[in-house]
Amino acid sequence: MKRAFYNHIENLQNKITSALESIDGNAKFKEDLWSRKAGGGGRTRVLQNGDVFEKGGVNISKVYGALPKTMESYFKVKDVDFFACGLSIVLHPKNPMVPTAHANWRYFEMYNKSGVLIDQWFGGGLDLTPFYLFEEDVIHFHIQCKKVCDKYNSDFYQKFKNACDKYFYNSHREEARGVGGLFFDYCRADEQTSLQEWYNFVSELGDHFLEAYLPIVQRRKDLPFTNLERKWQEVRRGRYVEFNLVHDKGTLFGLKTNGRIESILMSLPPHVQWVYDHNPVPNSREEKLIKVLKQPKNWI
Amino acid sequence: MKRAFYNHIENLQNKITSALESIDGNAKFKEDLWSRKAGGGGRTRVLQNGDVFEKGGVNISKVYGALPKTMESYFKVKDVDFFACGLSIVLHPKNPMVPTAHANWRYFEMYNKSGVLIDQWFGGGLDLTPFYLFEEDVIHFHIQCKKVCDKYNSDFYQKFKNACDKYFYNSHREEARGVGGLFFDYCRADEQTSLQEWYNFVSELGDHFLEAYLPIVQRRKDLPFTNLERKWQEVRRGRYVEFNLVHDKGTLFGLKTNGRIESILMSLPPHVQWVYDHNPVPNSREEKLIKVLKQPKNWI
Repeated sequence: MKRAFYNHIENLQNKITSALESIDGNAKFKEDLWSRKAGGGGRTRVLQNGDVFEKGGVNISKVYGALPKTMESYFKVKDVDFFACGLSIVLHPKNPMVPTAHANWRYFEMYNKSGVLIDQWFGGGLDLTPFYLFEEDVIHFHIQCKKVCDKYNSDFYQKFKNACDKYFYNSHREEARGVGGLFFDYCRADEQTSLQEWYNFVSELGDHFLEAYLPIVQRRKDLPFTNLERKWQEVRRGRYVEFNLVHDKGTLFGLKTNGRIESILMSLPPHVQWVYDHNPVPNSREEKLIKVLKQPKNWI
Repeated sequence: MKRAFYNHIENLQNKITSALESIDGNAKFKEDLWSRKAGGGGRTRVLQNGDVFEKGGVNISKVYGALPKTMESYFKVKDVDFFACGLSIVLHPKNPMVPTAHANWRYFEMYNKSGVLIDQWFGGGLDLTPFYLFEEDVIHFHIQCKKVCDKYNSDFYQKFKNACDKYFYNSHREEARGVGGLFFDYCRADEQTSLQEWYNFVSELGDHFLEAYLPIVQRRKDLPFTNLERKWQEVRRGRYVEFNLVHDKGTLFGLKTNGRIESILMSLPPHVQWVYDHNPVPNSREEKLIKVLKQPKNWI
């Protein structure tokens, strides 16, 4: 399974980076191969200063070996080995009318010290962080998510949609990071879903990422915007940074397992502002966004 | 003691904000009073878009009541009440030749549920984060720190200087946040230093902050700088954000005790960049700074 999934994300990375280069039309991904002392490594691909994407990363990695002491309490295990591989996407568009997109799909195995497999699961999801709210874009994104979910289990969409709203939440701001999507973790084989079915589900979501996101990029990337709208985007990106550095378990996992820092922190936006006590004008488009972030809703 | 110290920081805030407005010559501090539901509040003063300071905050607060559950494990106590008050300064200058400055002085009391005082201590410090290294500036700052320390105990300077290097360390980057200064915590009355002497020490440091920092601002604020130097400043500010959101216990304390978010996060810089895998040119002034951050040294 680990070979199959890594093979899948290697191909998926190729497919996604090609498609993104083609819609950007200008910038190319820079590739960095890296290896991890304690076992494993990755293939990082980052694009900067494109016509459409100001910064974007599409990274794969596999890391393995003894589970670091710092992670034992997190997983509530002791003296185990682990294997983890995954693909992570973060795309920061230049135009504030285009939402930031994030996706991650990962597979995890754990072994006792005799090398016997004791646990295995999938996790991941995809979600959208707009700066301006175009309801049809959000609905399109959620419909694509639901389409894949419904092929596997009619409960998946609502369950993983709710988990996404709950997870990507800046509790210190009392607002969601974005308008959600799907989030799932510890997806183990059970009576309803075999591990192979989880594999199929996660792979299929990966295959549909471009369908969920690119039509939105296509219809918003050439919209005009003002300096004030750009400023709003940079201020909102500050909230993105706050989530990733204060709350995100993926970032924490990367930092605690001695992952490659520049690959982990490719998620941070290129230009960001923190303005003291910055609040949207009443009844503005900016306020319309905040209202939805304060009170996550069902889009379908 | 708590009344005396709060009174002291109220006056100190006035003195420091006046002096900063006067050196800036353009921007004025905006004052916000806030109160905390569970007890206490503060007086936040933030200045933005000045001629010298792009953003700066000089805040005082006192918070009290039942110690939040989330902080009990941090302090290794259970079912106690607390009182905490302090002054925090963070100054982000516009010119990259002027270092960012930070200072904090705080006083803490803890009580059992019968209201009996069971613990009390001072904490705080001051430190400098340059973007370009002017050794004479760093030496001046450390000499001012040492001057106050030496009046109380000949061991203080080296001890608190080392603690500062250790505390303001971005472990995930393997580099210090800046060139240090002083850091101390849990300063309780003992055979060598009474609580009154700790009070005097901390107050005197507060009184010397301007002497330690303003001469540096004065001699660097009008130096010319290039767009590339400005970019370097914004990239380095990213490291400042990483420290404050990932590692800083003060920020964590604020977030966990339901402090006022905008007052806590006034520490975050105004304009920040994250550039993928950004490294200084060999033998450049930028590299000279990084070398010192990788290997903190004694300045006196």
